[in-house]
Amino acid sequence: MNPIYAAMRATVFEEMSALARARGAINLGQGFPDGDGPADVRQEAARALIEGPNQYPPMMGLPALREAVARHYAEHQGLTLTSDQVLVTSGATEALAAAILAIVSPGDEVLIIEPAYDAYRPLIERAGGMVRTLTLSPPDWRIEVEAVDAAFARPPKAVIFNDPLNPAGRAFTHAEVALLAAACRRIGTIAICDEVWEHVRFDGRNHYPLIAEPGMAELAIKIGSAGKIFSMTGWKVGFVMAAPDLLEPIARAHQFLTFTTPPALQTAVAYGLGKPMRWFEEMRAGYQHSRDLLASLLADQGFVTLASDATYFLCVDLPASGFADDDRAFCLRAVEQAGVAAIPVSAFYGGESERRIVRLCFAKRDEVLVEAVRRLATLR
Amino acid sequence: MNPIYAAMRATVFEEMSALARARGAINLGQGFPDGDGPADVRQEAARALIEGPNQYPPMMGLPALREAVARHYAEHQGLTLTSDQVLVTSGATEALAAAILAIVSPGDEVLIIEPAYDAYRPLIERAGGMVRTLTLSPPDWRIEVEAVDAAFARPPKAVIFNDPLNPAGRAFTHAEVALLAAACRRIGTIAICDEVWEHVRFDGRNHYPLIAEPGMAELAIKIGSAGKIFSMTGWKVGFVMAAPDLLEPIARAHQFLTFTTPPALQTAVAYGLGKPMRWFEEMRAGYQHSRDLLASLLADQGFVTLASDATYFLCVDLPASGFADDDRAFCLRAVEQAGVAAIPVSAFYGGESERRIVRLCFAKRDEVLVEAVRRLATLR
Ligand SMILES: CSCCC(=O)C(=O)O
Ligand SMILES: CSCCC(=O)C(=O)O
Repeated sequence: MNPIYAAMRATVFEEMSALARARGAINLGQGFPDGDGPADVRQEAARALIEGPNQYPPMMGLPALREAVARHYAEHQGLTLTSDQVLVTSGATEALAAAILAIVSPGDEVLIIEPAYDAYRPLIERAGGMVRTLTLSPPDWRIEVEAVDAAFARPPKAVIFNDPLNPAGRAFTHAEVALLAAACRRIGTIAICDEVWEHVRFDGRNHYPLIAEPGMAELAIKIGSAGKIFSMTGWKVGFVMAAPDLLEPIARAHQFLTFTTPPALQTAVAYGLGKPMRWFEEMRAGYQHSRDLLASLLADQGFVTLASDATYFLCVDLPASGFADDDRAFCLRAVEQAGVAAIPVSAFYGGESERRIVRLCFAKRDEVLVEAVRRLATLR
Repeated sequence: MNPIYAAMRATVFEEMSALARARGAINLGQGFPDGDGPADVRQEAARALIEGPNQYPPMMGLPALREAVARHYAEHQGLTLTSDQVLVTSGATEALAAAILAIVSPGDEVLIIEPAYDAYRPLIERAGGMVRTLTLSPPDWRIEVEAVDAAFARPPKAVIFNDPLNPAGRAFTHAEVALLAAACRRIGTIAICDEVWEHVRFDGRNHYPLIAEPGMAELAIKIGSAGKIFSMTGWKVGFVMAAPDLLEPIARAHQFLTFTTPPALQTAVAYGLGKPMRWFEEMRAGYQHSRDLLASLLADQGFVTLASDATYFLCVDLPASGFADDDRAFCLRAVEQAGVAAIPVSAFYGGESERRIVRLCFAKRDEVLVEAVRRLATLR
């Protein structure tokens, strides 16, 4: 067995969801909504399944979807990518895997920004790369000049940049994005931009795609997720956008990872990406309402939360809320004694880290959030 | 860029399908039926999409599908695997990638049997492994004792065994499967069994899964494909079956390749796998009819074909049919001048090989096969 996988456990998301299922707990752990995606998008997929064809689409994705992706990002983020700069993948996880396998060779150093999604490290290591980390600190999770300078002092081959940042719920400012772009440009570091949360932003915040920064068109790989855009995390339709010289080797890796993605789902996502701006604003307003509700319910019970600019997640500061400084112990007690699953943020660090923060997913109906906080309050 | 992908081209299947689309040619290249899958299975998927949930299913797959897979192989192949020995993947390609990334470490030698599906070699090399080959010869493509002894003289870490064999259309005999099992057992070589064509067999031939051979339960990894079973190559629902010690690291690799597979498609495949034996027999009879039709149409025009026991494919012997010994040149002429796409079998070899065989996909309506042969005859 390859030692990277032989020593590994199931992801913390899977572990906590399995515990939640086993205990019948409310699952505020793994990030998924308890509602379902837009009825018209699902109807479109159902129609395409019935009408067919259900055979291999082109390996790069259905032309209609590649064009819809290019148009969508022109409309939403002012990008000028053409449809031949779009690759469709079986979810953003496959997009990440294909990008890392295509770019990283044995011995390459890759920078990740911690707290970091748990897929990055094993994928880099399985590609033969060595992980370096730049660590952000709560409660602000700011990218600081000194930290970037230190991290790029010995320039990495690539950096993985998750913006908005899971689990922190941080949407980076234009100044922070520009700082990272400047560091990448200095010696041509490739930036793998995991932007799956780009549409789930609050309080009117903008998203600043790194690929739009000066000089980054040839260095940045932008990864998006239809599952996150349409609140259907099980759909597993993702996109990679990059200049041809970057996209081509990623497409080669993709052709031997999944080759292609179900055409009916591609057709439905192409349809959905053309929804009017109002639909996206309403989606955001709905999640913002849920964020605000969870924050105020928690505050009423004496829990102290961090800011959340984006994503489905709100972080609780355990010691400030009167709990011991052990996020994993808190989460195990929460699921077993209170019947609420949550995610310990220490799972987003490769080595030692603080253990004072727990992540809660607020993408749930109001009454579920009310009941969850009632239960969490019993843990005192 | 990683050199493995930097130097690589699109797969020959993608290349020929793209040429076929560009020329409006009949596509007998890439292996997919021109019909669509069973209406009731598609209807079940459409229903599950509408009813939901469309959120993350468990990383190992929906329990209903894992149980259906275990029951299906008990009924069809007498296997006694339990549902916890089943992992659901986003197609058999992802299953292969996860198995190879989980098992192969830098420096490991992996044996492939040529002609070999084009995904094996780059996946092994990207995992850091070294490819060794055992070459089978037309027209019989038999696995011989001497060749196996020579290939296992320095025992490989793993062997990839594709049975039935694409592109040869060969279903191996029990004696050949037993020979390979004995070689694996000798020093514990892991066998990655790509059995995606297991159900598409003709003339009453049996399928002998390597995992059922004595001592192979702990050494074999069986990979299957719902897309091939249900004639919907775009669905991308695959399965891995293996003993827990093998399955666990493969699941770890899977969780960072795609994590999961659309739940509506999983639900529909679980339903379809329970179809009565008669359905599978009629599916086979339909493709057998197409094989026989294509073979006789080709014979009428003086083309000499090899036997086809299984798969969607029939091979043409070019020199015996009066054509020059250059399969790639023939295929380019066929798509450009005659409007028929086909696959040069030399694409299934890593190094030099014979160039005398061209593969045709017969999973098409009768009138399509008639017209395709009429066009091919114009190449003389
Ligand atoms: C693929 S499971 C993890 C889902 C997710 O984005 C999260 O919970 O952080
Ligand atoms: C994934 S494209 C190749 C499909 C196939 O099995 C074949 O044509 O051999």
